[in-house]
Formats: sequence, structure tokens, C-alpha cells
Amino acid sequence: MRLRARELAILFGIGAAGGLVGDAGHVQAGTTTYLDDATPFVWESALWFPILVGLATASLGELRLRLGPPRPGFDARVGIAAIAAVLAIYAVTALVYDEPEGPATTLIVTLAALVACGLGGGAPALICGLAAAIAGPLAEIVIVELELAEYAPSADTLAGVALWLPALYFAFGYVAARLAELLVARR
Amino acid sequence: MRLRARELAILFGIGAAGGLVGDAGHVQAGTTTYLDDATPFVWESALWFPILVGLATASLGELRLRLGPPRPGFDARVGIAAIAAVLAIYAVTALVYDEPEGPATTLIVTLAALVACGLGGGAPALICGLAAAIAGPLAEIVIVELELAEYAPSADTLAGVALWLPALYFAFGYVAARLAELLVARR
Amino acid sequence: MRLRARELAILFGIGAAGGLVGDAGHVQAGTTTYLDDATPFVWESALWFPILVGLATASLGELRLRLGPPRPGFDARVGIAAIAAVLAIYAVTALVYDEPEGPATTLIVTLAALVACGLGGGAPALICGLAAAIAGPLAEIVIVELELAEYAPSADTLAGVALWLPALYFAFGYVAARLAELLVARR
Repeated sequence: MRLRARELAILFGIGAAGGLVGDAGHVQAGTTTYLDDATPFVWESALWFPILVGLATASLGELRLRLGPPRPGFDARVGIAAIAAVLAIYAVTALVYDEPEGPATTLIVTLAALVACGLGGGAPALICGLAAAIAGPLAEIVIVELELAEYAPSADTLAGVALWLPALYFAFGYVAARLAELLVARR
Repeated sequence: MRLRARELAILFGIGAAGGLVGDAGHVQAGTTTYLDDATPFVWESALWFPILVGLATASLGELRLRLGPPRPGFDARVGIAAIAAVLAIYAVTALVYDEPEGPATTLIVTLAALVACGLGGGAPALICGLAAAIAGPLAEIVIVELELAEYAPSADTLAGVALWLPALYFAFGYVAARLAELLVARR
Repeated sequence: MRLRARELAILFGIGAAGGLVGDAGHVQAGTTTYLDDATPFVWESALWFPILVGLATASLGELRLRLGPPRPGFDARVGIAAIAAVLAIYAVTALVYDEPEGPATTLIVTLAALVACGLGGGAPALICGLAAAIAGPLAEIVIVELELAEYAPSADTLAGVALWLPALYFAFGYVAARLAELLVARR
């Protein structure tokens, strides 16, 4: 592992906490609904959801470091802004899920692009963003197929998940990559 | 006073004007309603509201300067962007007040964090933001208790005011601190 | 012409594509409705709409270069962010068109100001923004007068078009100016 155990734990914790906050927004707004009550719940989420997001965050951070040397320079403000940006987009998806799909998707895609342009990071960050944009929605499609959860009818046109979901995950992957860089720079 | 009379007047004017614009949004959207017509109204606001916001802006600016030397460098664009950012958040609160409280609050909190990270300013700015985040909602809770105004039922869970209100005031305090720095840098 | 044919074509293409995406959002949301089916349609737009936006983009880029020497430095991220920013505002207008006009307009105006402050560019960019803010809504007022299209009743108070339309065009003009600078810097 390129990331130390403590750094992986920090990424896991940030991802799990962020997943809980974002998912609570989706559940409260009605964007998504859990269909299976067999697992314990934490706040609004089935226990496995924050765990999966935490694991994905740590994995994307590790992926980032394997793709090339991280950028130097630690700045807590960049890390806070990166986390806030992806949580803001997450909250916007909860607020616009029942709006027409066209402008809602355009908004999420363009916000994700703004986050990526703001964070920079070149090809490694882009690969992390694309990996998240592919793997995340695929995982959620499986979750929907397993009837563990569902998206509202106004936001399920991408094989059962929302059309804007890849863009949300893209921003997530970009942010996870940046956080990994910051953790290494802080050593 | 660390700020000159003219600078305090400028901060008062910016705050009063911004308060009028933001409050008009709240009133037009139905986020807040004035219950008392005894005082004169300016646009959509009772006269005392923009006066209070103007005084708060000047006070926070003065507080900023007492907390340490201001950062040098005058850039009108930074000032315009700071004012625009807090007014944008103000407008978003008017537009999402009847949305589920969870994602609405997450959005306002994360936007406030992005403004703070964007403006920077270290501990003095943070103190101004926190002072505003505490004093502002407390003042509005008193206003609600006095039955001068009320928040809509969908946005009144924080002792009668909105859960996102401290975050809006936090951004306001940060921006007031930055404007005070810019005014000194312009001397 | 200060811009080369290929550069004008690039600006035309970006503008036409962006116009299609943004206009699709307006039509799908119900912000605007085409009243005349005489011309062919591309996606959700009458063919003349993306052509007009493309021509406006190229014209504003050319205007920018005639107003003074462009800033040096090519950065694809700035171009992508500029395009994403104006499309994001475009999408927001589609999502808030039926919200109270006050906060909706405040939001679009402040977002346009943030884009302008972020892109910079001084007087030439400001002139391009103002030129677009005047000419764009005027052209749309003519389109409404000709009964080719209409704005929803909740967004038609500016002589038949939306009150926030000048701010959207202002951001568009600023972005077109920046793209022209980037194209020259890339030579």
C-alpha cells in the first residue's frame, strides 16, 4: 500500500461520514428509498452504504498514489473545500431529483466539471474520477437490481439509477484523489 | 475605532443593501413573514432589519481589525465576489426553505465552507464567522419570540429559525471580515 | 478579423452546442416554449437558436480582440471551467424559472458576478459581458414579439422575457471573451 494504515483509515472515515450525510439527504428528499430492512441502519442509511463509500474513498486514494507521484503542498483549506464541494453537489442532487432530468443532469455535470477544474491534478485525478464514475453507478445498479434500494421514478433512467449519478461519482473520485495527495503532503 | 467613519459607513451601507436584497427574497418566497406592521417598511423589509444588518456588518468589520493586522492587497474583484457569494447563498436559502431540511442544510453549510475556504483569512476571519453564526441566529430567535417575524413551518426547527441560518451568518461574518481588510488595504 | 477562421468556427461550435444543451433544459423544464414549428428542430431547439448563439459567441470573441490585446497564457482548465460555469447558470435558470422572481434573479445575478470575478479580464471582458447582456435579451424580446417562442408566465416580466436573462447573457459574454483570449494564447 502506498497510503499508510492511518491515512487509509482517515480516507475511510471521511468517505463514510460524507456518505452518511449525502445519503441522509437522498433518503429525506425521497431521491432514494431503502427496500430492505434486514441490515442495521445508521442515521438514514443501511449500515453497508457508508462502509462501501468509505472503502471506495480509501481505494480511490490508493489508486491515485499508484498512478504517479502526488503533488506536494499541504493546505487544509483545499481539503475542506474539496469535501464541501462534493457534499454540496450531493445535496443538490437530492434537491433536484424530481426536476426535469435534462437541466438537473446538466447542472450536476457542469458542477462536477467545475470541481475537477478547480482541483486540477491532471491524468491521475481524471482516471480516479472516471473510475469512480464507472464503478460507482455500476455498484448502485447492482444494489437496485438486488432490490436493496431504489431511485425515485423521476431519477432512474440510467438502468434504474439517476442519469446524473456518474457525474456525482466523478466529482467524488476527483476529491478522493486530492485528499490522498494532501495526506501524503502532510507527512 | 480601527475603521474610519467613512469605512464603517461603507460597511453599514453594503450590509443594509445586502440585507434588503436577501430579505426581499425571503419574504417573496415565504421563507419569513413579518408579523408586525408598526414600523415603516423599506421594499419588503421592516426598517429595522437592514439597519441591524448594516450595524452587524460594520461591527464584524471592526471586530476583524481588533483581532489582528489585516491582510494587505486591495482587489475590488475579491470584494465583489465576496458580496456576491453571500448574497447567492442568501438567495439559495430562499429557494430551498421548503425543501427537506437535511439536504437544504447540507447545501448551505457546504456553500458557507466553500466561501470561507475561498476567502481564507485564518483565525480572525473564523472568529468573525463564528461570532456571526452565534449572534445572528440568537438575534433572530429573539425577533421570532417577540412575534415581529416568523419563519415558515418548514424552516423553523432551530428554536423558531431555520437550521441553516447559522451557516448563512457564518458566511456573512467571513465576508464582513474580508471587506474590512479590503477597506484598510485601500487606504 | 482578429480571430482566424478556424478559431471563429470553434467559438461558433462551442456556442451552438452550449445553446442546444441550455435550451433543451429550458424547453424540458417549461421555462420557454417554441410557438412556431415551421423551422426544423435540433434536439429541443428550433434550428435558428443554436445558430444564433454560435454566431453571438464568435462575434463576442471577435469583439473581445478588437477591444485590446488578449491576456497571454493558455490553460484548457480555464476554458472548460468557463464553459461549465455558464452552462451551470443556464441550467439553474431552467430549475428556478417558476420560483419567486426576486430570489431567482438575485441568484442568477450573483452567480454571473462570481463568474466575472473568477474569470477577470478587465474592461474588455466587462464590455463583452454588457454587450451580451443588452443584445441577447433584446434579440429574445424580438423573438417573443414575433411569436416564435415565449417564456412561462412566471418568467416573462422583462418585456416578455425573464428578469434574470440579462445576467445569464452577461456571464455568456464574459465567457465568450475569455474563450477568445484562450484561442489566441493557444496559437
